[in-house]
Amino acid sequence: MIVAMQEFATEEQIDTVIEKMVEHGVNVHRTTGASQSILAGVGPTQTIDLTVFEQMPGVMYVHRISSPYKLAGRGFRPQGTIIRFENGVEIGGREVVVMAGPCSIENEAQIHETARRVKAAGGKFLRGGAFKPRSSPYAFQGLGIPGLKLMHEAARANGLLTVSEVMEISQIDSMLPYTDLFQVGARNMQNFNLLRELGHLRKPILLKRGIAGTIEELLLSSEYILAGGNYDVLLCERGIRTYETATRNTMDISAIPMLHKLSHLPVIADPSHGTGKRDMVIPMALASVAAGADALIVEVHPNADKAASDAAQTLYLEQFEEMMRVVAAVAKSVGRSI
Amino acid sequence: MIVAMQEFATEEQIDTVIEKMVEHGVNVHRTTGASQSILAGVGPTQTIDLTVFEQMPGVMYVHRISSPYKLAGRGFRPQGTIIRFENGVEIGGREVVVMAGPCSIENEAQIHETARRVKAAGGKFLRGGAFKPRSSPYAFQGLGIPGLKLMHEAARANGLLTVSEVMEISQIDSMLPYTDLFQVGARNMQNFNLLRELGHLRKPILLKRGIAGTIEELLLSSEYILAGGNYDVLLCERGIRTYETATRNTMDISAIPMLHKLSHLPVIADPSHGTGKRDMVIPMALASVAAGADALIVEVHPNADKAASDAAQTLYLEQFEEMMRVVAAVAKSVGRSI
Amino acid sequence: MIVAMQEFATEEQIDTVIEKMVEHGVNVHRTTGASQSILAGVGPTQTIDLTVFEQMPGVMYVHRISSPYKLAGRGFRPQGTIIRFENGVEIGGREVVVMAGPCSIENEAQIHETARRVKAAGGKFLRGGAFKPRSSPYAFQGLGIPGLKLMHEAARANGLLTVSEVMEISQIDSMLPYTDLFQVGARNMQNFNLLRELGHLRKPILLKRGIAGTIEELLLSSEYILAGGNYDVLLCERGIRTYETATRNTMDISAIPMLHKLSHLPVIADPSHGTGKRDMVIPMALASVAAGADALIVEVHPNADKAASDAAQTLYLEQFEEMMRVVAAVAKSVGRSI
Amino acid sequence: MIVAMQEFATEEQIDTVIEKMVEHGVNVHRTTGASQSILAGVGPTQTIDLTVFEQMPGVMYVHRISSPYKLAGRGFRPQGTIIRFENGVEIGGREVVVMAGPCSIENEAQIHETARRVKAAGGKFLRGGAFKPRSSPYAFQGLGIPGLKLMHEAARANGLLTVSEVMEISQIDSMLPYTDLFQVGARNMQNFNLLRELGHLRKPILLKRGIAGTIEELLLSSEYILAGGNYDVLLCERGIRTYETATRNTMDISAIPMLHKLSHLPVIADPSHGTGKRDMVIPMALASVAAGADALIVEVHPNADKAASDAAQTLYLEQFEEMMRVVAAVAKSVGRSI
Repeated sequence: MIVAMQEFATEEQIDTVIEKMVEHGVNVHRTTGASQSILAGVGPTQTIDLTVFEQMPGVMYVHRISSPYKLAGRGFRPQGTIIRFENGVEIGGREVVVMAGPCSIENEAQIHETARRVKAAGGKFLRGGAFKPRSSPYAFQGLGIPGLKLMHEAARANGLLTVSEVMEISQIDSMLPYTDLFQVGARNMQNFNLLRELGHLRKPILLKRGIAGTIEELLLSSEYILAGGNYDVLLCERGIRTYETATRNTMDISAIPMLHKLSHLPVIADPSHGTGKRDMVIPMALASVAAGADALIVEVHPNADKAASDAAQTLYLEQFEEMMRVVAAVAKSVGRSI
Repeated sequence: MIVAMQEFATEEQIDTVIEKMVEHGVNVHRTTGASQSILAGVGPTQTIDLTVFEQMPGVMYVHRISSPYKLAGRGFRPQGTIIRFENGVEIGGREVVVMAGPCSIENEAQIHETARRVKAAGGKFLRGGAFKPRSSPYAFQGLGIPGLKLMHEAARANGLLTVSEVMEISQIDSMLPYTDLFQVGARNMQNFNLLRELGHLRKPILLKRGIAGTIEELLLSSEYILAGGNYDVLLCERGIRTYETATRNTMDISAIPMLHKLSHLPVIADPSHGTGKRDMVIPMALASVAAGADALIVEVHPNADKAASDAAQTLYLEQFEEMMRVVAAVAKSVGRSI
Repeated sequence: MIVAMQEFATEEQIDTVIEKMVEHGVNVHRTTGASQSILAGVGPTQTIDLTVFEQMPGVMYVHRISSPYKLAGRGFRPQGTIIRFENGVEIGGREVVVMAGPCSIENEAQIHETARRVKAAGGKFLRGGAFKPRSSPYAFQGLGIPGLKLMHEAARANGLLTVSEVMEISQIDSMLPYTDLFQVGARNMQNFNLLRELGHLRKPILLKRGIAGTIEELLLSSEYILAGGNYDVLLCERGIRTYETATRNTMDISAIPMLHKLSHLPVIADPSHGTGKRDMVIPMALASVAAGADALIVEVHPNADKAASDAAQTLYLEQFEEMMRVVAAVAKSVGRSI
Repeated sequence: MIVAMQEFATEEQIDTVIEKMVEHGVNVHRTTGASQSILAGVGPTQTIDLTVFEQMPGVMYVHRISSPYKLAGRGFRPQGTIIRFENGVEIGGREVVVMAGPCSIENEAQIHETARRVKAAGGKFLRGGAFKPRSSPYAFQGLGIPGLKLMHEAARANGLLTVSEVMEISQIDSMLPYTDLFQVGARNMQNFNLLRELGHLRKPILLKRGIAGTIEELLLSSEYILAGGNYDVLLCERGIRTYETATRNTMDISAIPMLHKLSHLPVIADPSHGTGKRDMVIPMALASVAAGADALIVEVHPNADKAASDAAQTLYLEQFEEMMRVVAAVAKSVGRSI
């Protein structure tokens, strides 16, 4: 950690800060310049609340140097993490894995038709929401576990894995038999109790970046899961909130290479939520793969215009098939396959 | 709702859109201009997922006109809501109510000393966190219910009410005996299951705006609580995330008059989280009251530098007392008291 | 235009609004619902200041439907614009055009070495700043016209075109002999006097999106140039300011397909400024091309670590050559060449 | 400056960085921890482009400690700056100075009527735009110098000073006889050539924060003016661009105390542009004064609904008079007058 003192800080103020640093088990080295003193501290600074120092008299500026996450950092596993599923599918390897399905599971016909087409086009996971967090209390809220069961049957009948969102701790157990990959939604990125609980599972977790989550916060949240011993975390970029209103969110494609640089965890892109517009999904899926995404998750529906939720960002089945063709070409051009 | 068709939309496309609108129970009026047709729909548009229309062929633009919240809207109770507590304290009336206390409840001495001084300076509520959501899994996580009990004793011994954050449904029952006002934190603004549950309580709720929450989303979230029959909701502005890094968050003071315009619910300002800096708390408290805030919530600690969390934004007790003096003067200048 | 009246608007208020609309030459169609009236206006609404209506008594909401740009809209030239240069280079066609060079022109050796290598690797334009807008008054401010001359010689000696930033009207004439493409920087996106002047030139303009510019504002700014009769405008995505600090800016890749949808003008991506980090440039260049960019502009320097400005985001020459190889592969995978 | 090396940086990498720091005239002190080395540099770091260091091999993180502005910093003039005008008006003292007038100067009657009422209500400056930067090329662009002359006559006839926006260097000379305070608009906050030129004037400058300008950038821009010897700079908060759309901009009231903390320059608030809505102007004016603003600038028009620009945010004259009454009360409550 670094504490920069103000230009006119007194010796007494500087000493008080040094004492407080030492109190926290930090070794302090002082640099005295013409106009300013700088205190560099080395030690267990990851667990110190630096805000304590920020407003001590004479202090100008405090900065933590060590990254506050450990297990999620690239240094922990320089070779990168590969998440392996029982049917042999791997995320984080050479192959770009595609997950697709409706926003909400609606009925048997819908989910079976989707599963068949997703599989045929080369998808590996069937996605579908059983519990829907909706910003209006008057909107469709999902089918619950019976829906999840339908999705699991459709997936297995077609050799697919399943991914679905868990919204609270109480849902975990009942979801367990039907879920190969638990998704934590953007609104729950900082639901630390839920994350801690998922750290004790032995199933992989797809962790979405919050709509205003920084890259550092996303990694800190993954740390909650890793700290419980569950190392199979898939980080998801799904668009952040900015001043731009032409798209629902601004998909931060640069988060993909940045997460790869900072962490060993694989990265998935969600161009459906990232843009909120059907005709933006394909270009953003291509951009994600070109930037290094290990996987894609998109919304597709046999009757996209009548989808019970998120209709505007849901691909028609034909569009999904078209997407798979061009994604395969781009993946190949950057040395990967689909 | 309004559907604006593209300049070169065909008659067939227009007809298809009109049919879909009628299908949803909406009466449609068409305006044909030189270059463009506009469809105005009147009917049950609050429950329609407008995204369905957004990408129909020939559609340029869809807009909902009715606000999607009903019970939270100003029109529902033009005279405004006053939340009444059993000891006679009222929020939303002429008086500006002040709530203060430590970020985390740490021990009996801390909380009793704080309660005594808060009361003496004119505060009405004692605040304190028992369960702390922390972005790092390695930081202090709170004392839980025993802490809350300590706070409740300290409050009652000094004639104060209590406010504390509820993080999940399972905590509600055990918090109930010790909590006069349940706070929903910024990270839970869209935890709809929790909101729905709190709608069934008969205790007032303080609902914080999410760090990237819009004013409309805050009102929609309050609607979840109101829809359950609990009309005592206090809306809280506590800073939003912007590109500016000089302050931790950007406190959106304009949300205060805007919420008063759009809704009948009272508004509280949190200048501690709104700025993240101790020396900004007083000016922002004054600004909030000048802009019409009905209440203030601030962090204060008998030994602010050693607070277990949020130290940098926590007032010294002397600062709090100073704040109360100037807040009283500003409140009076805008026709209110403290 | 649409004017939605409040639920309890009086007939008198509605009539006053209708009169004002008619006064502005607009035909008004009224839709009366159970709870609300909506006024749809068709006519010359592009030139009306809608804010006039926004706060008339009884008005809830005003919206312009027609897009406020005309010449820049896709509808004006559905087939798309191709910008043609005298040596046969085209932007907006099948080929992805690459522009590269140092942030600042520093000396003859630097610019000649760069030109040679850019050409050899397949670049078509040499870029370089002669006038540098720097946020600190104490930083290097550029070589001016003599620098531009050096760059032009180096470009022509290697069969390249030149692109350089114009910062004010007074620079245009002296830059003219040495500049094939005039760049308007992000800070000048709304320097309307400059834009208007450039509309009278008969040289193509590269218009950068402002750091907080919306897509609509970028198109409106291009309209200033087009309105002067200069239709050769190249729109540039170069990163926007968001709350994320891991990258200097957040590159909005989705702006590329969105601009193509809304406008006929070609689009160039600037991954150097878009990310501010050298090791992010290649992945973001690939993402841009995958998303449909018609051109790329990047910073490259024979001695990138000693560049007089923007060193951290400047590619080494070897990195640039590597970039060209992978960009070519991705371009091919989406049906384009380089 | 601080350079934090990566955990596994080699001794050779560390030495290379140290050499480069010394090369720039910086004294280096090295701190070696268990896992990481930190280099603290003291010397002329204000003029070094730190990005050079950012991507040197083995470097994790670079930070400048000294603030990059000098003349604008609070330390330069701890007692604060008071701007004095020839008629005795002072900005930055005990009195809160109010500036008011139409967005655009339209005609003699309009500006005289406004001047009379502004003066009567206690205003000290008449504002009015002669050159209007408009985002659409089809909107009203201002009357130019003849308009400014009209405003100056109206001001002087009523004992008022004038403030008007300068958009480019070429306008300065012709504006000089009629302008007591030159306003630099938000779009020109980083028009460094214009700022440098205004540094050579001997008239005060009102410098508006850019719509995406940070507080640090605003101070750096002021430094351009101060560096020319013109120390009479008035900093203006006028709303920043955020994701919130309920208000046109988000007025960052916390910038007022923050600027006072960081700088000696006085601060003015612009609640008209800050909110974009007439009915938000008064509460935000009150909030600004409560937070310590030294001056206010608002838009007022004798016939606000028919204003040629910015009608929606323009106060009626009666509203302005009402505002002056309540602003005076709030100013008094925080120890100031009007």
